Amino acid sequence: MSIITAGILIIGDEILSGRTKDTNANFIAKNLILAGIKLEEIRVIQDKKKIIINSVKSFSSMYSYVFTTGGIGPTHDDITAESLAEAFDKEYKINLEAFNILKNYYPNGEFNLSRQKMAKMPSDAQLIYNPLTAAPGFIIKNIYVLPGVPEIMEKMLIEVLKTIKKGAPKKIITINTNLFESTLALFLENLQKEFSECSIGSYPYFGFKNKTAGLNIVVSSWTMDSLEIIKTKIVNEIKNIGGKSNIV
Amino acid sequence: MSIITAGILIIGDEILSGRTKDTNANFIAKNLILAGIKLEEIRVIQDKKKIIINSVKSFSSMYSYVFTTGGIGPTHDDITAESLAEAFDKEYKINLEAFNILKNYYPNGEFNLSRQKMAKMPSDAQLIYNPLTAAPGFIIKNIYVLPGVPEIMEKMLIEVLKTIKKGAPKKIITINTNLFESTLALFLENLQKEFSECSIGSYPYFGFKNKTAGLNIVVSSWTMDSLEIIKTKIVNEIKNIGGKSNIV
Repeated sequence: MSIITAGILIIGDEILSGRTKDTNANFIAKNLILAGIKLEEIRVIQDKKKIIINSVKSFSSMYSYVFTTGGIGPTHDDITAESLAEAFDKEYKINLEAFNILKNYYPNGEFNLSRQKMAKMPSDAQLIYNPLTAAPGFIIKNIYVLPGVPEIMEKMLIEVLKTIKKGAPKKIITINTNLFESTLALFLENLQKEFSECSIGSYPYFGFKNKTAGLNIVVSSWTMDSLEIIKTKIVNEIKNIGGKSNIV
Repeated sequence: MSIITAGILIIGDEILSGRTKDTNANFIAKNLILAGIKLEEIRVIQDKKKIIINSVKSFSSMYSYVFTTGGIGPTHDDITAESLAEAFDKEYKINLEAFNILKNYYPNGEFNLSRQKMAKMPSDAQLIYNPLTAAPGFIIKNIYVLPGVPEIMEKMLIEVLKTIKKGAPKKIITINTNLFESTLALFLENLQKEFSECSIGSYPYFGFKNKTAGLNIVVSSWTMDSLEIIKTKIVNEIKNIGGKSNIV
C-alpha cells in the first residue's frame, strides 16, 4: 500500500526571530493525520526568494503534497507567489478570478495597487478561497499556498482537505504508564524488532512543579490492520512488572 | 561584519504526527536573537537515522551553530547520538564522565542497561550538563545536542549560551499602527529599497472575535548602528496619512 505524504514549509522571518510562535504547523499536522496523510517534514525558512524556490522545488518532488504558509499579503516582503512562479517557470501575473473577488470585497476606491498584488500568482494557479478576508491562496502542481494568519489559514486548510486524495487512516494507540522509560526500554526494543511494520515511540514526561512523571507509549502504523496484539503485549508486560497502565 | 548563524533540528515523530506541540524551537529562537545569533532555519525531521545524518551534516556546514532537540533518551527510538557518531565517523561508545554522572544519580541497582545507553555518544563529545535529570547532552563539532523535554532543554540551553561566541545584538524596532497593511505597502516597499541593510517586515493581525485589527511593522538589522532614521520616517508617514502609531 502506498502512503500519501506531505511536507510543510513555514515561510516566515517572524518565526525564526522568535517574535511569533508558529501554530500553523501543528494545526496542519493534526489535520493531515486525520486525513490519512503522513507528514514527513516541517521547515521554517527565511523570506528569501532563492531559499523559497529551492525549498518548494525539493519538497514538491519529495512529498505527495506540500503546504506553505505565509508571504501572500500585499507588502514587499510577501514574495511567496512570485517565488513559486519563478520556481516552476510560470508567468507571475494577475489572476482574473482573484482580481474580481478582491475588487468586490473592498469598498469603492479601496482596491489599491498593493491590494491588487494579492491577485498576482503563477499563471494556471487554481484558487483556494478565503471565507474571511477574500484574498485567496492557490494551488500550483502539488503545492497548496496558504496565508500565515492562523484564523484564515485554518479555515482554508479545512476546505482544501475536503478536496484532496486521502490515505488510509493511521492506526494509533497510546498507552500511559507510571513506569520509568528505562524499565520498559529493552522490552519495547524487542517488541519493535518483532513488529517492524509499526512504530513504537516512548515519550516520558516530567512535571517538575507538581512532581508527576510518567510515560506515554505510542504505537502507530500506516499499514497494519490492527494494533491489538501489540497493545495486549505492552499492557501485560506493564502489569507483570507491577506497573499501572491505561489507554489514552 | 560577519554574522553568527544557527539552525535548529527538531528530531521528533511526535511533532510531525501533531501529538505534541513543539515549544523548543521558539524558546531557542528567542534566546539566540538575544545572544546576537541569527537563526536561519528550523527543521522538524523524522526519527530516522539516514534523515538525521543528512540533516546534521548539511546544517553543520551551513550554519555557525546547530542545535538539535530530542532522541537522546534510553529507548530504542532514541537514535540521535548514534546517528551523530555515524555522521562524523566517530565511534559510538560509553562516555566515562557521563557514565559516572548517571551512576551517581540513580539509586543502587537502578542504573540498568537502558539507562547506561544515555552515556553512549560519539567519541570526543563534550558534555552538556543536565541539572534536573542528570542525563547529559553533548557537543560534537558545532552541534549542540539537547533533550526534547522542554523543562530540561531550556535549562541546558541557557548554560550553553553562556559559553558560546555571541554576535552583535540585532537591532529591532516594532511600530504598531491601526492602518491597513495595504495602505502602507508602497511606502514600506520604497523605504526597504532605500535601506537595504535592514529588513522591514509587515505583520497584520486580525482579532476576528473581538473585531480588533492592526499592523506591526518590524524593522530589524544585524549590521546597522541605528534604526532611528527609519523609525522616524515610518512614524511620520503614519501620522501624515491620519493613522496612529506606537512603539511596542
